[in-house]
Amino acid sequence: MNPHDIRTLLEKLAAGDLDIDDAVDQLAKLNGIDDMGFAQMDTDRKHRTGMAEVIFSPGKTTEQLEQLIERSLVHHGSVLVTRLEPDRAAALVDTFEDLQYNASGRILATPPPSPAIHPAVAVVCAGTSDLPVAEEAAATLEHFGHEVDRITDVGVAGIHRLFGVLDRLKYARAVIVVAGMEGALPSVVAGLISRPIVAVPTSVGYGASFGGIAALLGMLNACSGGIGVVNIDNGFGAATVAHRIARRDPEGETP
Amino acid sequence: MNPHDIRTLLEKLAAGDLDIDDAVDQLAKLNGIDDMGFAQMDTDRKHRTGMAEVIFSPGKTTEQLEQLIERSLVHHGSVLVTRLEPDRAAALVDTFEDLQYNASGRILATPPPSPAIHPAVAVVCAGTSDLPVAEEAAATLEHFGHEVDRITDVGVAGIHRLFGVLDRLKYARAVIVVAGMEGALPSVVAGLISRPIVAVPTSVGYGASFGGIAALLGMLNACSGGIGVVNIDNGFGAATVAHRIARRDPEGETP
Amino acid sequence: MNPHDIRTLLEKLAAGDLDIDDAVDQLAKLNGIDDMGFAQMDTDRKHRTGMAEVIFSPGKTTEQLEQLIERSLVHHGSVLVTRLEPDRAAALVDTFEDLQYNASGRILATPPPSPAIHPAVAVVCAGTSDLPVAEEAAATLEHFGHEVDRITDVGVAGIHRLFGVLDRLKYARAVIVVAGMEGALPSVVAGLISRPIVAVPTSVGYGASFGGIAALLGMLNACSGGIGVVNIDNGFGAATVAHRIARRDPEGETP
Amino acid sequence: MNPHDIRTLLEKLAAGDLDIDDAVDQLAKLNGIDDMGFAQMDTDRKHRTGMAEVIFSPGKTTEQLEQLIERSLVHHGSVLVTRLEPDRAAALVDTFEDLQYNASGRILATPPPSPAIHPAVAVVCAGTSDLPVAEEAAATLEHFGHEVDRITDVGVAGIHRLFGVLDRLKYARAVIVVAGMEGALPSVVAGLISRPIVAVPTSVGYGASFGGIAALLGMLNACSGGIGVVNIDNGFGAATVAHRIARRDPEGETP
Amino acid sequence: MNPHDIRTLLEKLAAGDLDIDDAVDQLAKLNGIDDMGFAQMDTDRKHRTGMAEVIFSPGKTTEQLEQLIERSLVHHGSVLVTRLEPDRAAALVDTFEDLQYNASGRILATPPPSPAIHPAVAVVCAGTSDLPVAEEAAATLEHFGHEVDRITDVGVAGIHRLFGVLDRLKYARAVIVVAGMEGALPSVVAGLISRPIVAVPTSVGYGASFGGIAALLGMLNACSGGIGVVNIDNGFGAATVAHRIARRDPEGETP
Amino acid sequence: MNPHDIRTLLEKLAAGDLDIDDAVDQLAKLNGIDDMGFAQMDTDRKHRTGMAEVIFSPGKTTEQLEQLIERSLVHHGSVLVTRLEPDRAAALVDTFEDLQYNASGRILATPPPSPAIHPAVAVVCAGTSDLPVAEEAAATLEHFGHEVDRITDVGVAGIHRLFGVLDRLKYARAVIVVAGMEGALPSVVAGLISRPIVAVPTSVGYGASFGGIAALLGMLNACSGGIGVVNIDNGFGAATVAHRIARRDPEGETP
Amino acid sequence: MNPHDIRTLLEKLAAGDLDIDDAVDQLAKLNGIDDMGFAQMDTDRKHRTGMAEVIFSPGKTTEQLEQLIERSLVHHGSVLVTRLEPDRAAALVDTFEDLQYNASGRILATPPPSPAIHPAVAVVCAGTSDLPVAEEAAATLEHFGHEVDRITDVGVAGIHRLFGVLDRLKYARAVIVVAGMEGALPSVVAGLISRPIVAVPTSVGYGASFGGIAALLGMLNACSGGIGVVNIDNGFGAATVAHRIARRDPEGETP
Amino acid sequence: MNPHDIRTLLEKLAAGDLDIDDAVDQLAKLNGIDDMGFAQMDTDRKHRTGMAEVIFSPGKTTEQLEQLIERSLVHHGSVLVTRLEPDRAAALVDTFEDLQYNASGRILATPPPSPAIHPAVAVVCAGTSDLPVAEEAAATLEHFGHEVDRITDVGVAGIHRLFGVLDRLKYARAVIVVAGMEGALPSVVAGLISRPIVAVPTSVGYGASFGGIAALLGMLNACSGGIGVVNIDNGFGAATVAHRIARRDPEGETP
Repeated sequence: MNPHDIRTLLEKLAAGDLDIDDAVDQLAKLNGIDDMGFAQMDTDRKHRTGMAEVIFSPGKTTEQLEQLIERSLVHHGSVLVTRLEPDRAAALVDTFEDLQYNASGRILATPPPSPAIHPAVAVVCAGTSDLPVAEEAAATLEHFGHEVDRITDVGVAGIHRLFGVLDRLKYARAVIVVAGMEGALPSVVAGLISRPIVAVPTSVGYGASFGGIAALLGMLNACSGGIGVVNIDNGFGAATVAHRIARRDPEGETP
Repeated sequence: MNPHDIRTLLEKLAAGDLDIDDAVDQLAKLNGIDDMGFAQMDTDRKHRTGMAEVIFSPGKTTEQLEQLIERSLVHHGSVLVTRLEPDRAAALVDTFEDLQYNASGRILATPPPSPAIHPAVAVVCAGTSDLPVAEEAAATLEHFGHEVDRITDVGVAGIHRLFGVLDRLKYARAVIVVAGMEGALPSVVAGLISRPIVAVPTSVGYGASFGGIAALLGMLNACSGGIGVVNIDNGFGAATVAHRIARRDPEGETP
Repeated sequence: MNPHDIRTLLEKLAAGDLDIDDAVDQLAKLNGIDDMGFAQMDTDRKHRTGMAEVIFSPGKTTEQLEQLIERSLVHHGSVLVTRLEPDRAAALVDTFEDLQYNASGRILATPPPSPAIHPAVAVVCAGTSDLPVAEEAAATLEHFGHEVDRITDVGVAGIHRLFGVLDRLKYARAVIVVAGMEGALPSVVAGLISRPIVAVPTSVGYGASFGGIAALLGMLNACSGGIGVVNIDNGFGAATVAHRIARRDPEGETP
Repeated sequence: MNPHDIRTLLEKLAAGDLDIDDAVDQLAKLNGIDDMGFAQMDTDRKHRTGMAEVIFSPGKTTEQLEQLIERSLVHHGSVLVTRLEPDRAAALVDTFEDLQYNASGRILATPPPSPAIHPAVAVVCAGTSDLPVAEEAAATLEHFGHEVDRITDVGVAGIHRLFGVLDRLKYARAVIVVAGMEGALPSVVAGLISRPIVAVPTSVGYGASFGGIAALLGMLNACSGGIGVVNIDNGFGAATVAHRIARRDPEGETP
Repeated sequence: MNPHDIRTLLEKLAAGDLDIDDAVDQLAKLNGIDDMGFAQMDTDRKHRTGMAEVIFSPGKTTEQLEQLIERSLVHHGSVLVTRLEPDRAAALVDTFEDLQYNASGRILATPPPSPAIHPAVAVVCAGTSDLPVAEEAAATLEHFGHEVDRITDVGVAGIHRLFGVLDRLKYARAVIVVAGMEGALPSVVAGLISRPIVAVPTSVGYGASFGGIAALLGMLNACSGGIGVVNIDNGFGAATVAHRIARRDPEGETP
Repeated sequence: MNPHDIRTLLEKLAAGDLDIDDAVDQLAKLNGIDDMGFAQMDTDRKHRTGMAEVIFSPGKTTEQLEQLIERSLVHHGSVLVTRLEPDRAAALVDTFEDLQYNASGRILATPPPSPAIHPAVAVVCAGTSDLPVAEEAAATLEHFGHEVDRITDVGVAGIHRLFGVLDRLKYARAVIVVAGMEGALPSVVAGLISRPIVAVPTSVGYGASFGGIAALLGMLNACSGGIGVVNIDNGFGAATVAHRIARRDPEGETP
Repeated sequence: MNPHDIRTLLEKLAAGDLDIDDAVDQLAKLNGIDDMGFAQMDTDRKHRTGMAEVIFSPGKTTEQLEQLIERSLVHHGSVLVTRLEPDRAAALVDTFEDLQYNASGRILATPPPSPAIHPAVAVVCAGTSDLPVAEEAAATLEHFGHEVDRITDVGVAGIHRLFGVLDRLKYARAVIVVAGMEGALPSVVAGLISRPIVAVPTSVGYGASFGGIAALLGMLNACSGGIGVVNIDNGFGAATVAHRIARRDPEGETP
Repeated sequence: MNPHDIRTLLEKLAAGDLDIDDAVDQLAKLNGIDDMGFAQMDTDRKHRTGMAEVIFSPGKTTEQLEQLIERSLVHHGSVLVTRLEPDRAAALVDTFEDLQYNASGRILATPPPSPAIHPAVAVVCAGTSDLPVAEEAAATLEHFGHEVDRITDVGVAGIHRLFGVLDRLKYARAVIVVAGMEGALPSVVAGLISRPIVAVPTSVGYGASFGGIAALLGMLNACSGGIGVVNIDNGFGAATVAHRIARRDPEGETP
């Protein structure tokens, strides 16, 4: 709960700009919860963590999504919906005309700030099959206001491809590396630059990749330093880490 | 290979301050490798990644450690040895009098810069049994030049203990959270602050912790955003991530 | 086999209120088994354990379900069918008009006692995706005669939501906590109240949740005391534990 | 923090029965934390959960144990230390003469209340190799004030042994069942009585028991209802569940 | 290769009852292989192991099944096809009118010997969901010529159901026990009788049964002696073990 | 409980050959339990299953072993102790002079019947490192009264070694096959003979044998029929299966 | 980057056979990368490793496949597409008329060299269900220019089938062995011949084959020497290993 | 069994250079087995596979090792003992003065052929902790007669170290790559050269390396072609694969 918001509300009440009923209603929400019955929206999360609550689609009905989107727009003026399949996205775009759907990243969101308000993050992926996970990360970062540099298909089987993009990697404030199979790319990248690496294992691979376990273990055991790992196929999670690393503070300080 | 170093060397040669044989020898090393026979020290790593090569003790003889310490001192003027048992540390401190041994963190190193030259990192641990891993992280960060704030024994079974240290958590540029058993602490911390979290699972726990797998999975599946995970018991690895996040750039820019 | 039932039957026989054939038939069933050929209904289970045999739908034909429902109604006057899909439920509701179907919990049952005859149990869930499992637990408890308090979406990423419902948690005689992902909620709840916790891991989560293994291990390794764990997604099982904890004894004693 | 304790303290201060310094000191602790530097003792836990913080020995030095024991005695007048090896126990008994060591259960504690103040709990174990885990549970329950009935060596290979103790099982308010190998005993017991079962898998067994995984999975998949499972070899954890189920409320109400 | 068959063939050739070409052709097959191109039928297997090669359907085309059935009939006068889905079975029954399809056990075969020529085997299953696996075992045993006693739904949650069938269990020469979930039934049965037990874990169960791993481990770790375990859901495999145990030798000796 | 034993006892009492106190004492034991406090010896097991209760040493004190041995001798006139280390065996042989210790199989037992009273069982092992497990099986079978044929070091890397012993394999009534590493030997043996195979995986092997999991899975997935599998390194368990298969019935019938 | 190609290009430019723009374009590609936006084709791979980049279909759109095929034909005059489903193959064959589709091996490729230009490789499979994986290996090898000998259905349950093909196995320069279930065939083959074995586990099998883990572990733990293992179901990968072993060097030397 | 050896033996007998008893004895051994009671030495293995049987030390007594060494010397004039600890090696070197012990590789063997008789194999290792496994491979290859090039400490964290040795890698006929942690080195090497790669995962690493599983999975899932994998820490196994690939045929043909 943000003390500043409470003060503002009480000043309005004192000034007669707000009646008692509205004040009660707003105060109820200022406790950081918008109780929607089937959900308790954490309206204070942006204040605490810098990122508003995001809507994870699986397991929710379209009606529930509509209500959550509407309330998120009321509280924050923006919304981010992840893991949304195309057909449901189409219906929601009909309802909420200002939202944009990123089919590759399966993300529905309000348009990102333009120009970007936070430093650059590079999103690197090892193979073309890893693209959807990388795009989920990239689109989320753009929603958060970052400049994003997408670098694709630079896996270690042809390592010369990586050397051609070293300058782009070094320019970024943080680097997300997305890879399936043996997940070796983060180790190699971390050995070449000094920025923090966020590694995302993907479930891409033959039998013994075991749905991404091979890549996950590869990244956790990387022989290079400076690598933080997130869950399998979790491009969104990688973006939240990179955002916390790279975002400019409210006072405008550059990380 | 650092162009500046090459230039300096060639200038000395031209000025007659270096004879040909020494120049050849030094140039050979300037290719970024100090070939020690049993090891190929990566002398260029600090230039590329901001962190010099660190010496991991297990599986190395004391003689090998001595040679590696000596060469690291020659190349960088500093050294960091990890996972070193007390008896071997005592012998090495006899040989290298300027080194200091941190018994809890099992780290042998040259004294850290004083005062600190990089921003603060908080190292939080859930229980007293997690202290050795937390100390490995803390001592490594001090070696890298960070201000470090150690916060101990604030596990979720008594969650009020965490609220008492919120201001210290918010002050830090990055927060390392060390926890065993169910590994729930990073989720809770990440829900309360906006800085990036580096989560370290430990092997502390009863039977079905499976040597830290339970905590590792807990952290990878955290419902809060902004958490990068490192290997089980890998306090050193967590410090390398936090350092890349929090270090001040050579130009003095604060992250 | 209940001695009281045998005595009653024999008294009827002696009084001429029952002929020999019927007596033989009923005695056969009084041995605690209703032999239906494809199944041996355990008609004595309610007497031994306080809970009549429940019908688990998967792998049974609709004809078998009909026979089992019919025999359960004969023996107990009530029936509980779990994990029943909507289309089969519709057919069975046509046949047995007194039964009610709970679509979210996938449960078909005779209406619960009203008012409740057993103390309150709270059913808490961490996220909206965990609702079906929570509802299976809640509906089962209502069938058993408990007052049930459903508390939803209070996961640890926004822990203030939990503090708002502490009084409801303390009022309950037992608390079921349903959570996926890292499964941290039971640890936090158990650190705040004194009642027994029944923890249910769910299969909700990204890749490395491994179908609920992450949450299961998290709950088994909870650093707080007082938590008993049941199988993944097993809301019904959790209800059986809570019922044994919280039910009022036949003599009317409150647990 | 217990409001009643605060009031009492302030009344003493007002009445001149306490000087300012002592009041400050005591209030500091009344925030629920005794900050011991290497540990943050949760002094409020007993108030919240009904069980004071317990001292888990592994990974702690003997000096740390001494300090924790001393502070626990100050705060609660009692202490419970678990997983303590005999040699360290001998040293601590020398220092704290009132403590008693239970070698089989590896528990050091103040003497339990006599007579018992809470209802009976049965602790059943399948084989003689499971005895240490069962004794950890039994001794912990006695420390909490329960009447305890130890029933040993009634595994399912000779199931008639179990029928001989049915009356003792039915008398208990809760039943802890400890078993290794296939972990089948809880299923059988739960099918015979109506009280809640707390199942403890042990690491006893041949190769493919995998340190207790076989028994753990057996118990989680039990075909009988009413079973809550705790971690492998975690007799202490089982006792905390049974205590929450079976303890008499402060108002004296029998569960 | 059976010497007797070779002799017979050569005698026919010598007697002029066989021409050279046919002799060559038959001798080629007498080497124990019927080379069908896509398969090498092991025509000698019945001679070596007492059981002719059986046809496992998955991954084979219907045309391949037809050819294999035809050749099996030529070599042995009988055939057994396992894991055959109903629609393909219908087509094959059209082609081979003498074959019979057992839908529950998914087995297509020539009619079994009547009356049975081998001793009785009991096939016990714990729950009704385990029936398809049990039926695969039972139908295979009947094909091999055994008397089979099917005993269903006698799981350990209501253990009195088992005592009612003890005499039938003791009569059998071997007992197959089929169970899912915790797989405890074989332990209990093996503690009550003296015949060998063949245990079959099934994939029936909630989340942490992990597709039958829980039951498999339970059976491998059984505390009772005399239990041999086969693969998950492998009713056919269990029948091959029971047949080797219980079959009457060619000389008519009863096992 | 054996009715014949009860009758005998009562006849002695009636004839005055037994006084009341002794009769009470003996009847108490005739309920099938010898209650030794720390253990409940199942004295009826031999009657039910054909094998008396066996003493598994690990986790038992030497005093407990002495008591168990003594009581076993009283009840059965014989005893079998498994997994006994040499130093403890030496002490027990001093106390019980008639017992013999088999160091390789780690078995202490009364001398086996001579000559053998049950048919032959072959115990085959793949490599010399598997010998201790094979010897545990062989010595247990001799204790049970079987003729035993030990066949060693016939692994599949040199498969011609197996063909040389085919006649010995065919002579046995059952064949135990012990193998580590990939555990392929049972598949090959089962394809060559018609007798039942009991397969024992061992923990022998390089890294990815995972303590016997590789061999265990290999045996469970054997492509040949007729193989029942027991736990890793469980030579004793294999012997109990083979004994149930191969033992001559009390009436003298040969299996 | 092949120096010869660069020289040729520059000579054309000098001779006026190439204008500047085309030269720039071609040189860009001669750095070993054909930047297609969504992919970075590694055009130098054939030069470095002897095998051009291959197109793995899953996760790529048909449009992407078309572009990749076209560019591969431009760079190499040949193309190999793996894991391609029949319907998409049909569309691509319409577009690229010279390509041939192998339905069993799911491979689309330019016709292989005829006659073969590299030595023979044998591809052996244990059962008919393993055929698709074996065919993927065989067709890939033919594409690379090898003579291929397909040997099917010679699993260890009827080991005499293997002895009949020993001469064919010995003739090959390398032997690929494909097997599911327990994966024992490579051990047996490696014990009979002197050529290197490439072992491919398949996901064929009953429950506890766990999607090929059993076969994979069996092969990694083979007691015979000379076996290199590839990923589950990875026939293509096996072919790349065999090709590197068996291919004739550019100078025409036979391996 | 080598026909040439049989002929030689029979010629000697015919010429009177051998008496009947010796001939019988030698013929017995010519069946390919030297029956030593506790072991069946496979004396024909060298003839079949090109490599004589090797002695794996663990689980064998020193007496057994002596006998096996002696017999191996008789049959082959050479011997190779693996995984031998230094103290036992010292004793055996006393007995067999011609043997040499390689302490790092834990190998005891007759001196290797000098000069080498087979082409070069490179043995590359990622870190200094992997050296013992690499040395086991290298020493085994020298025993087999290969030229061996040891390349150490060229892990991917400093990938420039690898480029400096590319010519040495290309010169070798096969390349063994030994790596722990994430096991990424084989992927990178296989992308740079055209020779077959034998990858050996090691158990070196922090917690979640799980004793080498991470490296094993990394290698099995390598995105580069041409990699065959052996068991964890199995340097010997890698050498057997490389030998089969690289050895010169008896006719002198170079592979």
